[in-house]
Amino acid sequence: MNNTNNTLKKIALDGWNTQITRANKLIDGLTDEQLLHEVAPSRNSGLYLLGHLTAVHDAMLPLMDLCEKLHPEMEEVFIKNPDKSSLQKPSAKQVRENWHQVNTHLTQKMEALSGEQLLDKHNSVSAEDFEKEPHRNKLNIIIGRTGHLAYHLGQMAFLKK
Amino acid sequence: MNNTNNTLKKIALDGWNTQITRANKLIDGLTDEQLLHEVAPSRNSGLYLLGHLTAVHDAMLPLMDLCEKLHPEMEEVFIKNPDKSSLQKPSAKQVRENWHQVNTHLTQKMEALSGEQLLDKHNSVSAEDFEKEPHRNKLNIIIGRTGHLAYHLGQMAFLKK
Repeated sequence: MNNTNNTLKKIALDGWNTQITRANKLIDGLTDEQLLHEVAPSRNSGLYLLGHLTAVHDAMLPLMDLCEKLHPEMEEVFIKNPDKSSLQKPSAKQVRENWHQVNTHLTQKMEALSGEQLLDKHNSVSAEDFEKEPHRNKLNIIIGRTGHLAYHLGQMAFLKK
Repeated sequence: MNNTNNTLKKIALDGWNTQITRANKLIDGLTDEQLLHEVAPSRNSGLYLLGHLTAVHDAMLPLMDLCEKLHPEMEEVFIKNPDKSSLQKPSAKQVRENWHQVNTHLTQKMEALSGEQLLDKHNSVSAEDFEKEPHRNKLNIIIGRTGHLAYHLGQMAFLKK
């Protein structure tokens, strides 16, 4: 069933790459000023959502046992705290750079996994629990995070004039 | 590898059911008046997005070879035309009813498929093309539409006060 595993890998990574490509097209087409706007009145700014997505994608690296986070400093500002916290945020330029760097690195590492490896457990489930719940695998992480990206991308689309 | 197929089915349907449950919680908690609002200034109304999602999910029934559409009349208003067309829309009550009816029916039919059946081709690919592109299967439809739902759900979340 090696063929089935390759098919699954293609489905998961095509879905991921489609959303990343859409996101890049949107973000690269926005000025820094547009990115700093709230996506809707009294909602998160584009910068916060981009930082949030970057931090969540960065956390996929250790979760999928690929490597350490590239930007662990982003978690505090963009995951543990809301947009309207008093914490200083990195610049739009810096967040854009981190976004592209994290996704490029992460996507390369995911593409290098075999279909079989995608069915292996991720790092927040014990070997014992994974015996009983084999769906808690790396494939599930990719599909889940693709949905998370789509959710916020729908919101960030409102930054476009 | 029957176990792998069951794992895949669980991943795909858990992801689907998670988004449907989130959507129902949001929508059932909104008044009809809230649903009629635009999700952000000059953007689609909640009613249009709910109708759009309903029509797209309804189209999954024939696409996955499960049965005919339950509400083929929704395609014209909610897929082929934009929110600001001159077409008369069904009431909020009607769209809510269709939404729940379509999803209940569709989810039951999807749950009844085996993991193997989810790897079968969907109805917009020929048998010949499917030979070369085995990822164009029913599983791919479910995962793709789950992402589509998440995209618009991120927007509809703004209807909440």
